[in-house]
Amino acid sequence: FSSKLPKTEVSIFSRMSTLAQQHQAINLSQGFPNYPVSERLISLVEQYMRKGFNQYAPMPGILVLRETIAEKIASLYAVDVDANDEITITSGGTQALFTAIGTVIKPGDETIIFEPAYDSYKPTVELFGGNVVPIRLKAPDFSIDWAEVKSRISERTRLIILNNPTNPSAKIWKKQDFEMLEKLVKDTSIIILSDEVYEHMVYDGLQHCSVLQFPRLRERSFVVASFGKLLHTTGWKLGYAVAPKYFTEEFRKIHQFNVFSSNTPVQFAVADYIKDKSTYLELNAFFQKKRDLMLTGLKASRFKGIPCEGTYFLLIDYAQISDAAELAYAIQLIRQFKVATVPVSAFYSTFFDQNLLRICFAKDDDTLDQSLAILTKL
Amino acid sequence: FSSKLPKTEVSIFSRMSTLAQQHQAINLSQGFPNYPVSERLISLVEQYMRKGFNQYAPMPGILVLRETIAEKIASLYAVDVDANDEITITSGGTQALFTAIGTVIKPGDETIIFEPAYDSYKPTVELFGGNVVPIRLKAPDFSIDWAEVKSRISERTRLIILNNPTNPSAKIWKKQDFEMLEKLVKDTSIIILSDEVYEHMVYDGLQHCSVLQFPRLRERSFVVASFGKLLHTTGWKLGYAVAPKYFTEEFRKIHQFNVFSSNTPVQFAVADYIKDKSTYLELNAFFQKKRDLMLTGLKASRFKGIPCEGTYFLLIDYAQISDAAELAYAIQLIRQFKVATVPVSAFYSTFFDQNLLRICFAKDDDTLDQSLAILTKL
Ligand SMILES: CSCCC(=O)C(=O)O
Ligand SMILES: CSCCC(=O)C(=O)O
Repeated sequence: FSSKLPKTEVSIFSRMSTLAQQHQAINLSQGFPNYPVSERLISLVEQYMRKGFNQYAPMPGILVLRETIAEKIASLYAVDVDANDEITITSGGTQALFTAIGTVIKPGDETIIFEPAYDSYKPTVELFGGNVVPIRLKAPDFSIDWAEVKSRISERTRLIILNNPTNPSAKIWKKQDFEMLEKLVKDTSIIILSDEVYEHMVYDGLQHCSVLQFPRLRERSFVVASFGKLLHTTGWKLGYAVAPKYFTEEFRKIHQFNVFSSNTPVQFAVADYIKDKSTYLELNAFFQKKRDLMLTGLKASRFKGIPCEGTYFLLIDYAQISDAAELAYAIQLIRQFKVATVPVSAFYSTFFDQNLLRICFAKDDDTLDQSLAILTKL
Repeated sequence: FSSKLPKTEVSIFSRMSTLAQQHQAINLSQGFPNYPVSERLISLVEQYMRKGFNQYAPMPGILVLRETIAEKIASLYAVDVDANDEITITSGGTQALFTAIGTVIKPGDETIIFEPAYDSYKPTVELFGGNVVPIRLKAPDFSIDWAEVKSRISERTRLIILNNPTNPSAKIWKKQDFEMLEKLVKDTSIIILSDEVYEHMVYDGLQHCSVLQFPRLRERSFVVASFGKLLHTTGWKLGYAVAPKYFTEEFRKIHQFNVFSSNTPVQFAVADYIKDKSTYLELNAFFQKKRDLMLTGLKASRFKGIPCEGTYFLLIDYAQISDAAELAYAIQLIRQFKVATVPVSAFYSTFFDQNLLRICFAKDDDTLDQSLAILTKL
């Protein structure tokens, strides 16, 4: 029995969370909140279970949720999306990414990704027989080298995966980036997969641009979003994919044989809950405070906080404290100082070590204060 | 953009359920219950949400659920399964099937399936580049033609998918079937995928045999089970896969990039709930009554009920009433008589029409009585 993914190991997030638990460390590694979920949202799930909504949802997701998502997209991005034909509810953002890649990639197809990158893109492309063409974001500001992108596009390029806001670099895509991308793909059949799960976490008055706002990208794009990130419920596993009808039809063929449908009472509850726009409009301010708390607090430490435009992650540079490799230093931080982070080297497909660690600040203020108390002592 | 599954359409279950709704027909098509879920189980989900178990579960599933499953398997089948290394919690039985097939199948690999077969097997194999070798169960009793199986095994055979109890034929595998299978795969590297989601629905004193009970099969098998079927919660999307450590490691590589993990509060609730063995030991008797109600009721009709050993489906033969093709007759039943069923031809990869419809009897007795009232008038 020979492995189809011989180089794949247990993900860095599982490994760091497990280590954090073993050493009773503050877990700023895997991206998930540690504060309570909205009481109202929980009550809604409960009500729908009690009302008897416990059987298969329609395969593309319940219509009222898809309609509510279409309204959200219209109000945020001034774009019309068809709830029937262009939105599919998934069992989390990860499943949407996996299914979109499975829909597109055939053996030998090339996929461009920007590194440091979320860890699921590469093995998923490879599982479906594709090859990944990794492009490193430029040092020190993680900007995109468009000349390099142009030079690495070939006849075999089938897919470009972008993640905006970007995990783990905490950068957001600017209008000019989209214009460059538009230019490069214009006369090709390249498809875009835009992972926008952190769309509501953008700071300092910056604005999230969705690929949906660029008609010539939108017609060739899958967009992935996550209710786990939006509603602080990463364990409920609900997300969605938006794509033009011809893509959505193919996406659903795979979706129906992968999971068939997603949790029914959660779908109904989320539809009700997000009808109140404050549930997502206030998210930015909520996380801006946490980001500021961390960045300001870190100023009193020997860690250098890297500018953070979006996501609920930020990078810290420990060059002044240690010259250990990132993984080694991250493990030392867990064992000796009881704070778990993620080494940024884990987001590169070829070894690259920059003395950077990623921390997740989707934590209650006490936890952030406690971790600052530790980090400022080092 | 060319389709990877050009022949795949919206599944027969989605189509029939949609038609049933449009025509306000009694829905005996797609397999899901229409009676309430246990109040205790719902309260448990609610409690775990309120206690704050709302973030990512560990990727293989929470340990206490895996341990409880290992205990269940030990008590039912007298087999030791390692909770750590051999069980993975999935977002439903379908996701377990999909991931297992994705783990095993490489381009060009052949997979033997027995038809009539559940509709996800074939397209999933094809998505991963494999070819399906369909073997028809024998008429009229849906038994397995072992001589044919032997003749269709080749060097390229990588996987045999069995579904026991079998949807839609309602047959169960006998000890001799397993012995034949053991003999045929003995000196090969063929892997078994055993879909046992109806393990608790076996009638007339018959016993479900799991492949786990046959050591020489178990060492080469993935076994798939479903809490949706067990707990009458098809919309909660929870299931699991059991496989030897070397298979489970590979399965989890794909699982972690497909869905990563499954609903956390539901996992905790199910673990608590099924500690009480009556939750599954009483299922047989519960469904035996419903099966008997339907089979007995149908005696007063011109439909011929086919013997039903297991699953919550039974087949009815309408040859005495109409000579329409199955799909046409099923649609007529919905439109004109307000009862939705599934044409058995939908479970064959090449057209085969036997005047058979599948009905799901996982319905409250009122619904079964109402449908009998209609069917006996035809
Ligand atoms: C699915 S585990 C990873 C969670 C996450 O988004 C991250 O930590 O980057
Ligand atoms: C996932 S929809 C199909 C449900 C089912 O198991 C069936 O009707 O056969």
